[in-house]
Order: sequence, then C-alpha cells, then structure tokens
Amino acid sequence: MDADSKLLLQNTVAQIEDWLSEPFGNQEPASLYEPVDYILALGGKRVRPLLALLASAMVSGSIKEAKEVAIAVEYLHNFTLMHDDIMDRAESRRGKASVHIKWDESTAILSGDVMFTMAAQWILASELLDSDKKVKLIENFLEITRIVCEGQAFDMDLPKSTSATASDYMKMIEGKTAALIGGSLKLGAIASGASEDIYELFYRIGHDAGLAFQLQDDLLDLTGKKGLTGKKHCGDIYEKKKTWIYLSALKKSNDPDSSFLKNIYAPEHEISAHDVEEVLRIMQKLGIFQECEDIISSYYSKAIQSLESFKPSTFKNALIAFLQSLLKRDF
Amino acid sequence: MDADSKLLLQNTVAQIEDWLSEPFGNQEPASLYEPVDYILALGGKRVRPLLALLASAMVSGSIKEAKEVAIAVEYLHNFTLMHDDIMDRAESRRGKASVHIKWDESTAILSGDVMFTMAAQWILASELLDSDKKVKLIENFLEITRIVCEGQAFDMDLPKSTSATASDYMKMIEGKTAALIGGSLKLGAIASGASEDIYELFYRIGHDAGLAFQLQDDLLDLTGKKGLTGKKHCGDIYEKKKTWIYLSALKKSNDPDSSFLKNIYAPEHEISAHDVEEVLRIMQKLGIFQECEDIISSYYSKAIQSLESFKPSTFKNALIAFLQSLLKRDF
Repeated sequence: MDADSKLLLQNTVAQIEDWLSEPFGNQEPASLYEPVDYILALGGKRVRPLLALLASAMVSGSIKEAKEVAIAVEYLHNFTLMHDDIMDRAESRRGKASVHIKWDESTAILSGDVMFTMAAQWILASELLDSDKKVKLIENFLEITRIVCEGQAFDMDLPKSTSATASDYMKMIEGKTAALIGGSLKLGAIASGASEDIYELFYRIGHDAGLAFQLQDDLLDLTGKKGLTGKKHCGDIYEKKKTWIYLSALKKSNDPDSSFLKNIYAPEHEISAHDVEEVLRIMQKLGIFQECEDIISSYYSKAIQSLESFKPSTFKNALIAFLQSLLKRDF
Repeated sequence: MDADSKLLLQNTVAQIEDWLSEPFGNQEPASLYEPVDYILALGGKRVRPLLALLASAMVSGSIKEAKEVAIAVEYLHNFTLMHDDIMDRAESRRGKASVHIKWDESTAILSGDVMFTMAAQWILASELLDSDKKVKLIENFLEITRIVCEGQAFDMDLPKSTSATASDYMKMIEGKTAALIGGSLKLGAIASGASEDIYELFYRIGHDAGLAFQLQDDLLDLTGKKGLTGKKHCGDIYEKKKTWIYLSALKKSNDPDSSFLKNIYAPEHEISAHDVEEVLRIMQKLGIFQECEDIISSYYSKAIQSLESFKPSTFKNALIAFLQSLLKRDF
C-alpha cells in the first residue's frame, strides 16, 4: 500500500474511533446501554464507516457530511452482531465474551433493539443535511437492513435445507456481507449529494467487493496456510458449512465422491481429519478451488474497474488500496 | 358509548384490519416473514393505529394522511411483543403460541428485527407527505421506540432490584405503555400537519391515559370481580410483580406488615392463597386502593380535559368515548 493511502486510512480510522467513543444522549438504564458501549469498544477494523467516509469524500472532497452516516453503519453492524451471536450460539467475539454471555440473552435482544434504533437516529443526526437527503438516507438504510435480515434468515435456513445450491449460498452472503459493504459506500455517497447513478454504482462496487471478500474467506479456510488465519484450518468443513465451495463440489461431483460429500454432512456423522483430507482431494480434483478463485477475481476486478471511472483523488487511491488490502490477506 | 362514536370506531377498526392484511413487498425467505404475518393476524383491539387515525382526523378532518403511520405503530407494537415474549418466557399470546414457541427463539429475534425495520419503512411510505414531515415522523418514531426499549429494560431490572420504589414502577410503565399510546396520537397528529404545541399535547394526553390504563389494570387484578378479567385473580401478587400498588404498600406500611410484604416476595418463598388474603388486607388498611383510584382518576381527567380544548367533531367524540371504554372495563 502506498504511504499516502496508508496515512489517510490510519487517520480516518482514528477519527472514527474518536466519534464512536462520544457519549450518545440518554444512558439510563445502564442495563440497556452498557452492552452498546461494550460491543463498540471491542474494536474491529471499522471497515463500514471507513467505506462510508471514503465514498463521501470521493464525491464531495470532504468526509464531514458523512460523519453521522459512518457512525450509523458501525452501530447497525454491531447490532446485527449482537443478535447474530445469540442465534449462532457464539460465546465470544474478538476474544471477549459475547453480550448474551457476559449479560444474558434478554439483555442482548433488548440492547440490540435499542442499538438499531440508535443507528437509525444517527442516520438522521447531521445538521448539514436537508430533509430530502435525510429521507433518502433513512429509506436506503432501512432497505439495506431488511436485506441483511434476509441474509441472516437464509443463513439459518441453509443447514436445514436438503436441496441447497451454490446460488442459495450467494443469496445468503449478498445479505449477510455484501449489502452492508455496498450500503456503507452508498450511504456515504448519498450524504455527499451524489446522484442516483453514482450512489447505485457505489452500492454495486461494495456489493461485488463484499462477495469477493466472503468467497476469499471461505477459500482461505480450506487452502490458506495452516495456523495463520487465526481460525481452525478447514473449520468450515468440520462445522458442515454449506459454502459456495462445498455446494459447487457437491453439484459437480459424481458418485462415489458425491455420496461421500453428502454423507459426511449428515447430522449424525462426526467429521474426522481423514474426511477433511478426502473432501479437499475431491474439490481439488474437480477444480473447485480454481473456479472459486476465478469468481473472486471477476467480482473484485469488476469493483476496481468501476472505481477507475472516478476522477483521481487521494480518497480514491485509498479506497482502492483498502479494498486490495482486505482481499490480499493471502495467509 | 353513543351510537355515532361506536359506528365510527367499528368502521375505522375494519379499515385498519384491511390495511394490515395487505401484502408488504418482498416475502422471501418465508422463515423471516411468516412470523410477521402470524403475529399481525392474532388480532387485538388495534388501539394504537386507532389512536393515530383519530388524532390525525381531529387535526385535518381526514384519516388519509395517517394510514401508513397507523400501520407503522401496529407493526412497532407487535415487534415489541415478539421480542418481549422471548424475554418474559411467555408461551402464548391471545390464546395461540408465541412466535418463539411456534418457531424458535432465533426466528422470533430475527423476525422481530425485520418487523421493526418494516414499521420504520411504513412511517416513510405515504405519498401524501413531504420530506420535512417524514423526517419529523421518523425522528419521533425512533425516540418513542427508544423510550419503549428503556421501559422494557426497567421492567427486567425491577425483579432484581432490592430498593425499587413506586416511582421506578411509574418510569417503567411510562416506557412500556404510555410512550406508545401517546406516541400513536402524536404521530397521527404530525402526519396531518399539527403544530408542535398540538402534537406534544396529543403525546401528553395519550401518555396520561396510558398510565391510567396500566394502573387500572393493576388495580383490577387485585380488586376486580374474580373470574371476569380472564386472568387469575391477584395474579400479579402470585407472580411477585412489583407494581405501583405493591411498592406503595411496602413504603407506607410499618412492621410487622412491612416485613410480611417483603418476605413473601423473597425468591425462595412460594405465595399461598392465605398470603394473598393478608396482602389485600394490608393494602386495604393502608388505603392504597383508594389512593391508586385517585391517581388513575387524576391522570384520566387530565387527559380528557386536554381533549376538551379541541374543536367539536365526531372524531373527538369518538376518541373520548374510546378512551373511556378502555378505562371503564369495571369487570
């Protein structure tokens, strides 16, 4: 990454951290608002607010119109994490106890609800924006939220489905990942007064990049250097996740490979290290890894090419560098 | 109730039922949207949309500007029920299984989230309203939602608190009941273009009436004719609810009554019919029931008096008659 982009990104993230630590109006009862502060303080790369600010600055030359939108998308993201962790029975997040573990499920439900409400309040909070812009922002914010909820529902449906296809998986990650990556760019662009053509293009860019990131994550789970991803090697197979890779392999394979892939995902079967080796061998044989890499590359190139059409700026450079850094974690 | 008001209320509720049964855009995945239709179809008195429409019509002479707001407050109310039922471990609602029982907790969390999102989308959906009005509506809608969440948090805190007071209870029902009763009137008035003075007055009217209803409910639980409320007589005592009545009795009593009231609410104690008789005797002796009736009457009169200041109309008559009917269930 070039030094200018790196500095710009670092400064912008520092700015975001400052904003996120500002108190937000009423803080009583503590049982409701403490979990909100807790989950925000767990950190993270602040990808979504960063995207909102960069898109905004690419349109107007400044991040100031998108401050509240940037905070809003981080609140929205963390609200979804708080509720998803209950549904997914995830006991920790970023190395600390999830909200429903540190407190309890009821607290995580209710604090999530208020956090979503606060996110929507942030969307409307800027004094720089007129009513027309605020309505456009909140309408798009709500539409994005619905798509995110739909993605989580598809995700919960997948393990139960006996006829899931690779395209069902794509629909799921469109909601769970791509919608809010694209949505963050889009909302930032709207805040800065972008025309519909431009903010929809931003959505598409983030959407495609989001799909590429998620597929890349899935691919690295299976092909990444062991121990460097911070996650268990082939954890997705051990957890019987129906990823694009698995579902494509299932479709492309013939017996006995096809039956093998199906049988080891049966609820009663416990997956062994030997099963995993066999799955990887089948996927390799079918050329699924290469196919997945081609798709990632195609989504990613589409996103970058669309970005090229914008006029040169330090913000544009930083956005391209940032997207690249998210994808090129070739550990 | 006069015949004109009765007819107007009946017709308006029929209109609301029609609107609620209209399909709302995307319905996939079914696992996400079916619980939304399910809880809406469970019925209910549709108090909140009715209030929104009556306030709107009192301001502008027509309910048409408030259609979407009316639907929105019913969606919001049902979203809170869906999540509250999980937190309160309530297995049924209106004689049918709650969403988290019919489906599961994850479904109830997620469908609640999308239902809240849809509620906010309804707020913005009218083609008759300009952006300034929409922003005012959504800002107030979100503020009301936060107060409702705060009320639910106070409600969850109350059983754990060893120092709860009657005013803590009032703070709780302000959030859980009064805010959305007042909020429905307020949002209806905003939709019809009421000035800030007027819509804040509507909020206050609904707020005070809401407090009166809740206190009346609590009072009837203890003093109502047995078997006619559809609920277990003195159920609040058996469930150790820290109502205004209980907390006021606790404060006003001296030993040994005070210790008795405290001890029977201890976690390990199981309340007997004899305990309940004794509690009622103490409350009667302290004059708590009369005190509660006086407070109800004072909130209620304040609400009705404020309504009197509006110009005469069939809608005003119907609203007064409706509030009266909600309070005067002297079963």
